[in-house]
Amino acid sequence: MRVVTFGELMLRLTPPGYRKLVQAESFEAAYGGAEANVAVSLCCLGTQAEFVSKLPANDLGQAALNSLRRWGVQTGNIVRGGERLGVYYLERGASQRPSNVVYDRAHSAIAQASAGEFDWPAVFAGADWFHLTGITPALSPELADICLSACRTAKEKGLTVSFDPNYRAKLWSLSDAAAYMRRILPYVDVLITNENQAADLMDIRIPQTEINGDDVTDRGYLFLAHELQKNHGLRYVAIAERRTFSAEDNSFCAKLYDGEALCTSVKYRMDIVDRIGGGDAFAAGLIYALREGFSTQEAVSFAAAASCLKHSVEGDSSPLSAREVLSLANGSANGRVQR
Amino acid sequence: MRVVTFGELMLRLTPPGYRKLVQAESFEAAYGGAEANVAVSLCCLGTQAEFVSKLPANDLGQAALNSLRRWGVQTGNIVRGGERLGVYYLERGASQRPSNVVYDRAHSAIAQASAGEFDWPAVFAGADWFHLTGITPALSPELADICLSACRTAKEKGLTVSFDPNYRAKLWSLSDAAAYMRRILPYVDVLITNENQAADLMDIRIPQTEINGDDVTDRGYLFLAHELQKNHGLRYVAIAERRTFSAEDNSFCAKLYDGEALCTSVKYRMDIVDRIGGGDAFAAGLIYALREGFSTQEAVSFAAAASCLKHSVEGDSSPLSAREVLSLANGSANGRVQR
Amino acid sequence: MRVVTFGELMLRLTPPGYRKLVQAESFEAAYGGAEANVAVSLCCLGTQAEFVSKLPANDLGQAALNSLRRWGVQTGNIVRGGERLGVYYLERGASQRPSNVVYDRAHSAIAQASAGEFDWPAVFAGADWFHLTGITPALSPELADICLSACRTAKEKGLTVSFDPNYRAKLWSLSDAAAYMRRILPYVDVLITNENQAADLMDIRIPQTEINGDDVTDRGYLFLAHELQKNHGLRYVAIAERRTFSAEDNSFCAKLYDGEALCTSVKYRMDIVDRIGGGDAFAAGLIYALREGFSTQEAVSFAAAASCLKHSVEGDSSPLSAREVLSLANGSANGRVQR
Amino acid sequence: MRVVTFGELMLRLTPPGYRKLVQAESFEAAYGGAEANVAVSLCCLGTQAEFVSKLPANDLGQAALNSLRRWGVQTGNIVRGGERLGVYYLERGASQRPSNVVYDRAHSAIAQASAGEFDWPAVFAGADWFHLTGITPALSPELADICLSACRTAKEKGLTVSFDPNYRAKLWSLSDAAAYMRRILPYVDVLITNENQAADLMDIRIPQTEINGDDVTDRGYLFLAHELQKNHGLRYVAIAERRTFSAEDNSFCAKLYDGEALCTSVKYRMDIVDRIGGGDAFAAGLIYALREGFSTQEAVSFAAAASCLKHSVEGDSSPLSAREVLSLANGSANGRVQR
Amino acid sequence: MRVVTFGELMLRLTPPGYRKLVQAESFEAAYGGAEANVAVSLCCLGTQAEFVSKLPANDLGQAALNSLRRWGVQTGNIVRGGERLGVYYLERGASQRPSNVVYDRAHSAIAQASAGEFDWPAVFAGADWFHLTGITPALSPELADICLSACRTAKEKGLTVSFDPNYRAKLWSLSDAAAYMRRILPYVDVLITNENQAADLMDIRIPQTEINGDDVTDRGYLFLAHELQKNHGLRYVAIAERRTFSAEDNSFCAKLYDGEALCTSVKYRMDIVDRIGGGDAFAAGLIYALREGFSTQEAVSFAAAASCLKHSVEGDSSPLSAREVLSLANGSANGRVQR
Amino acid sequence: MRVVTFGELMLRLTPPGYRKLVQAESFEAAYGGAEANVAVSLCCLGTQAEFVSKLPANDLGQAALNSLRRWGVQTGNIVRGGERLGVYYLERGASQRPSNVVYDRAHSAIAQASAGEFDWPAVFAGADWFHLTGITPALSPELADICLSACRTAKEKGLTVSFDPNYRAKLWSLSDAAAYMRRILPYVDVLITNENQAADLMDIRIPQTEINGDDVTDRGYLFLAHELQKNHGLRYVAIAERRTFSAEDNSFCAKLYDGEALCTSVKYRMDIVDRIGGGDAFAAGLIYALREGFSTQEAVSFAAAASCLKHSVEGDSSPLSAREVLSLANGSANGRVQR
Repeated sequence: MRVVTFGELMLRLTPPGYRKLVQAESFEAAYGGAEANVAVSLCCLGTQAEFVSKLPANDLGQAALNSLRRWGVQTGNIVRGGERLGVYYLERGASQRPSNVVYDRAHSAIAQASAGEFDWPAVFAGADWFHLTGITPALSPELADICLSACRTAKEKGLTVSFDPNYRAKLWSLSDAAAYMRRILPYVDVLITNENQAADLMDIRIPQTEINGDDVTDRGYLFLAHELQKNHGLRYVAIAERRTFSAEDNSFCAKLYDGEALCTSVKYRMDIVDRIGGGDAFAAGLIYALREGFSTQEAVSFAAAASCLKHSVEGDSSPLSAREVLSLANGSANGRVQR
Repeated sequence: MRVVTFGELMLRLTPPGYRKLVQAESFEAAYGGAEANVAVSLCCLGTQAEFVSKLPANDLGQAALNSLRRWGVQTGNIVRGGERLGVYYLERGASQRPSNVVYDRAHSAIAQASAGEFDWPAVFAGADWFHLTGITPALSPELADICLSACRTAKEKGLTVSFDPNYRAKLWSLSDAAAYMRRILPYVDVLITNENQAADLMDIRIPQTEINGDDVTDRGYLFLAHELQKNHGLRYVAIAERRTFSAEDNSFCAKLYDGEALCTSVKYRMDIVDRIGGGDAFAAGLIYALREGFSTQEAVSFAAAASCLKHSVEGDSSPLSAREVLSLANGSANGRVQR
Repeated sequence: MRVVTFGELMLRLTPPGYRKLVQAESFEAAYGGAEANVAVSLCCLGTQAEFVSKLPANDLGQAALNSLRRWGVQTGNIVRGGERLGVYYLERGASQRPSNVVYDRAHSAIAQASAGEFDWPAVFAGADWFHLTGITPALSPELADICLSACRTAKEKGLTVSFDPNYRAKLWSLSDAAAYMRRILPYVDVLITNENQAADLMDIRIPQTEINGDDVTDRGYLFLAHELQKNHGLRYVAIAERRTFSAEDNSFCAKLYDGEALCTSVKYRMDIVDRIGGGDAFAAGLIYALREGFSTQEAVSFAAAASCLKHSVEGDSSPLSAREVLSLANGSANGRVQR
Repeated sequence: MRVVTFGELMLRLTPPGYRKLVQAESFEAAYGGAEANVAVSLCCLGTQAEFVSKLPANDLGQAALNSLRRWGVQTGNIVRGGERLGVYYLERGASQRPSNVVYDRAHSAIAQASAGEFDWPAVFAGADWFHLTGITPALSPELADICLSACRTAKEKGLTVSFDPNYRAKLWSLSDAAAYMRRILPYVDVLITNENQAADLMDIRIPQTEINGDDVTDRGYLFLAHELQKNHGLRYVAIAERRTFSAEDNSFCAKLYDGEALCTSVKYRMDIVDRIGGGDAFAAGLIYALREGFSTQEAVSFAAAASCLKHSVEGDSSPLSAREVLSLANGSANGRVQR
Repeated sequence: MRVVTFGELMLRLTPPGYRKLVQAESFEAAYGGAEANVAVSLCCLGTQAEFVSKLPANDLGQAALNSLRRWGVQTGNIVRGGERLGVYYLERGASQRPSNVVYDRAHSAIAQASAGEFDWPAVFAGADWFHLTGITPALSPELADICLSACRTAKEKGLTVSFDPNYRAKLWSLSDAAAYMRRILPYVDVLITNENQAADLMDIRIPQTEINGDDVTDRGYLFLAHELQKNHGLRYVAIAERRTFSAEDNSFCAKLYDGEALCTSVKYRMDIVDRIGGGDAFAAGLIYALREGFSTQEAVSFAAAASCLKHSVEGDSSPLSAREVLSLANGSANGRVQR
Repeated sequence: MRVVTFGELMLRLTPPGYRKLVQAESFEAAYGGAEANVAVSLCCLGTQAEFVSKLPANDLGQAALNSLRRWGVQTGNIVRGGERLGVYYLERGASQRPSNVVYDRAHSAIAQASAGEFDWPAVFAGADWFHLTGITPALSPELADICLSACRTAKEKGLTVSFDPNYRAKLWSLSDAAAYMRRILPYVDVLITNENQAADLMDIRIPQTEINGDDVTDRGYLFLAHELQKNHGLRYVAIAERRTFSAEDNSFCAKLYDGEALCTSVKYRMDIVDRIGGGDAFAAGLIYALREGFSTQEAVSFAAAASCLKHSVEGDSSPLSAREVLSLANGSANGRVQR
């Protein structure tokens, strides 16, 4: 049985080191996208995963597809055709200077895909989990419908559906995103979110008494998770708590609510190599852990460790194995040389 | 007095060495486009040149603009705005494997520009020459009209107009290009072309008796040049004769007809470093030479040498100085170390 | 239906540019081996292919395996375990200086594999072709037996078996290799060889009257192919004719004998980017063409073009598509820019 | 109206990463110098700026000049000629190991320039600000006089003059520098300095009661600024307060005194990418802010933010836009990804 | 007089930046090994040093040998021959992700060396110090005996012998290592160790009352050093105290006991560039200091500073000069630019 | 017994690939100089060699010195001190574009050295050969005298002296060089030259009847060699015949006259990787061969092969072993892969 994810795969172009785009004489090339990152990370953890999308029938589309196969991602349901491959330029921040993303993703093959190109019942044969983020429905109204249709089929076929709203202001408005949340949440089993998205997209606000400056109390998170779970009939609510002190200095902590208890991971303070894909690695870690039957506490610890380690490697997706993630989740966080 | 060129400037992404696109892990970044290449080459030869275009108001547009300023190109009339910067991917060929270009230039800022954005009378103040290629009008019907309008203004202001059809089958059909030729040729003083374009776009065919396999006799070229000159009232007809034996092994020779004599350059056999922009360096060399008052023979020799040397450097445009080009034009072609 | 190949996959370490090993401060890393190269090239041509081997259960073994998956090679029957991954260091030659290979492949996982680790009937399910070279049996006596056992099973299952002796003096003696040829040839349908191997390993010598210096007449090659075909009941005999003028300047021509006619390809004169894997790309091209039902003439033309183009790209294996190979096989050899 | 700066532009050679000079196999090449850095940074902020110097009439001089044009710096008054381009080698420090600069700048074109080569009245046409540092007069007695003469002309033409002593012990003695300060300060409107230079070069010492270890009280700085302002009739006194905890870990804070109040910026704690040019970016930020009519508090906040951000990018000068600097000056310092 | 060290020299292959091995497309190549690192560091400090080993008689062995000569290490007693050069792959860790070493050192030339290949009396002519680590005897039983024989000869010749147990669990068991310690300690004058090795290999345990969490009191270290000194008749006992907070964030402090007093260095908190060889740089600093006649306090300060600075440079060994180390040892630790 | 060479060692900075200096963003760093190149090449061939010079007492001087030690060159008599290390910038030519050298060598430590800094009797202890080129005396009048004094001592000590005029027009005039030739030739045993230098510096002109265009007859070379030998009492006259067809396409052939016969090498046609140092590799090959007692024919064949192979590797000096050179000298010139 395998996990299916669906979304856009883009060419990522990054100037070397800490050069800004206006200083770049070359770019490191990689391919990434939230849902593809989840599929790659799942394969590296040891789970079978498939990525579904549409890629242009040219050399760039092929290179993007190959970048997934390298890690073992199944690509048999990727449609080939369309106008172009989306591109995003990433300028790595440092200290007080933020990382900066310039998107050039309009008119991409997937953004122009139509419903008839995806045969969801066939895609979901042999699958038990479907993962989606809010980026894909934001790309076009047609894709918004395709995502709903995929979720509907997934549910009919008995798959678990996980969803991360992943709100991007450059793609759609908060009100459009909130409206879409109401359409898709009925199909969702596992929701991955944070307090800002809960407030802005799902209208759940933590009481002010549970907030101290940047910090939220455990009671506050429990309230949030419980409301979401109750309102939308969710199986699990995962909450990612990131704090950004500088471009390289972030903390990351996660919560997981299973309807009974809210379990919390260690809070990691990270010296970041590559910030992109930290959330996707969390999603992958969570899916892996839940499918492996980990307890709620084990699952949130594993998923947070997977996310933490992603920040220490270059690229959009995490090449770490389950063994490496478990080593950190089990407490070995001192970075001592392994020899 | 300066030379003005008008067209599209794209980001060029090239895998290192002889890697194919599907093998690329990084790209060398440069910015190029036929008319921008001419402007850069002119500046390096020692002529004042300005490039007019539209570039997006983001970091990529700024980096593209900076790449021109570096060489001294004037950029004060470049409009900022629009959707995106065009991109092209260049896979360097070798031996029997051809170089391969993948365009991703649709929806670019310049392709979506409108007539009101360019104030040609202001642009041409202080200019005595306007250079254009057939790529720009192929980008959109609006641009086709803008080019005509620019030519009209240029003629009114007394500028010399040079034009290189530069036919690209991926941008428009032969019949559309031929129709456009009939509209623009009345404004052209200096035409840069070759026997294929003459036949396909301007309906001038060299008699079969003057063709031996790949070779055309001098009489054949004279016929061609004379017909073009006579039919369209041209001041100069320049003919570029390239023969392609392999990806790195080409010959290049040029002819220049001034209405009286057809002057011919040396034929260079080149071991090519970078094929792109060879024709643009020829155009720049020709404009430089004619503006400097070189004789027809000197001009064609200089322009051919400028093109030859471009093939020996990386990038779309030629950084060579007039001194370096003259050294080759005057016969110093043995590549001996200068020390 | 798919093609199966079996052999060793090594880490290839190459100093950048034309640096010698004693000058190297860094290495480009790739993974290659004759039979793996054939599988990669087949996938790029559009054929399903699987590679069978044994790789260590560490990060290097994983990276090697991933390098195959990237191109679509199936890796489900690769055994994981054993001591180490073989390495080879490649120093790129230039002009009169030959390329130089330093092997560090002893004690590799595959060289120490045992018969029980490969379940050939299971491997060959869904396969119609098995390709092998003389490198694999040379790695250990156990592997020599495993190869025979695999061939026996392949024949029982109705697969076509192709074999390239690929004699390497650093691995075994001529007499040991010749003795092994007598054991394996009964299972072979398609033999890929040249006049030296025919003489040294299979005791077929072209009459001196058919040899002029470095050249062999068509009658000479026909004699050779016919003798081999007749003696060993072969379906096809393919002969690769390489001439080495300098490190970058080689010619390549191929012959294919189907028991009736000897068909000959064009002779390519190549300006080489990377010499390694030229023979493997020929084998892949031949297998592709024969499986696609090409005529003997079409098949040898396609296979020679595939080999020729391999020399123009970096790495052990050919990333070229069938479309690109056909373009050359059909005569488009001038390397003109595709744009 | 534009800003003019005058000084030396050198080739900067930096080993990649944290390699020491004795480990270097290659160098990253850039061009920098205190006054050129200010000009580049001003152009990136959006101010017209011109750099005046003398550069050799060879390819290196041209490359140096081009490096300025790229950012829009005007170079029309740069004299070409002289013996050589100065070079400096920069070894990037880390942790307890300091960055190390090896100068090879003796005999440079500018160090050997003579007064007659610069036509200051012509240079200052269209300019309203002249910036200078103490490095230029330290290069030769002739240059010391040229700087005074330039300042005199600048004042006559009504330009504002800013000066940063930038004392370098490798170029001249403290007593020579102090003597020169007495000659140049009469022409200075805006002085950029720190407490060490104030003591060593201008004989103003903060009372010990206002110093606690490494820290100076606001009253101490006010005393210092007021004394300098009063003694030398300055319009503004800017004080840069850097503290160096390790090679990558510095704090930076600035003060600006306008004769009435001493305004103080935020104190930034920085994880440094490239330390060189931090002071020049401060000067550029200050000039930009004062010319734009910012209040004293806004000006010091902007200038400190400009300096802080410079530390996060590679190279001698700051490519940051006014928008980016304002974002930090207005409090957005957490380095969160912009997407 | 010179220092002699004896051990294995390996090719070190490191992916660029923070890439994991499974992400590597290239490797930085260097040559290292504990005892070779000590010899290189000694030469850079200004001491004559010789490294003794066995290297294969191929280009890789030559490159390894050249890498030592570059720094001035004497190599006249390196035996050439044997099967292969050992390799180790180093994946640089970051934040919570540890650095990871994959060894491929079995079957190396030195691991298969035999006693007759080393003529110790000749090697030690002109030498006054012999340094060894526990890695070398762990490579083979034969090497264990060779090391003892070398120590015996060294003592007979009047050399000082220093030893660092450098326990590696991948090479031998704790009990084998402990048994070997009992054989070699009688020859040792200067022992470099830490509290874990003292407990595991030499059965000296610090009383629990002297341990607070990760910290050991000075009384605890004094107890340890005194026990070791007394039991084994040592001249000096050096103790390295490393604490690992993350992959880049370590502290380092050293103690040196001369039979009378326990002297302690500053505790350095380091932002690490390259962790490998930190202990070897400490050993080199200690040998340098003791041979130069530094006091016990000066010696431990110098050795700790040498180790600290090693962490700030890339590669296995320290290229720092005695002047640079002294500057830190004398308190200049703020990393301020030297210009 | 060893060979001593004396001269200048410079930092060589080369843009990557075929970039021109005005396009360079980085430089490959190496260290070279005619006489140092000879010493390095001799060590790689297996001869003991020492290089004498003066290098600044800074990190660049140390790096230069280390670059020689790496290959085994003895550096014990290199004086440390002086102002700066000379630099030269090398722009690699291609096809019709020549390579271009920009020197920045004035004021270097060696150019300012004085006679008292070199103790020639001590230098020549244990040496049997002294090699010098005309570059060193051209650097300063003092050096011209030092060279003569060194030659005088060398002759007194019984060393063989070899000399290559290596005329550089940028360093001195033809008449100064010719005058110096008359002073130094009395000490020379082995002269390495060509027909142009013979005419310009030593006033020996080949009769026009022996010249056909670019070619000289064997009788012409014999005349030249005999005249030189007779006039100056030389033991050997070596003549290098290079023809330059393009930047990468040269031929090289050598002649050696021993007073009786003129022996000629094969004429190599080379596809050049790096042209610099071709003559120095020839000198090294010749010195090696003559010291090894090769016959005149063997010596010229070996020296020409050594020079030919140098052109196929990057850098100023040849890392090739005697085995590799002999392989080519003995006729194995086809560049076939060694595996």
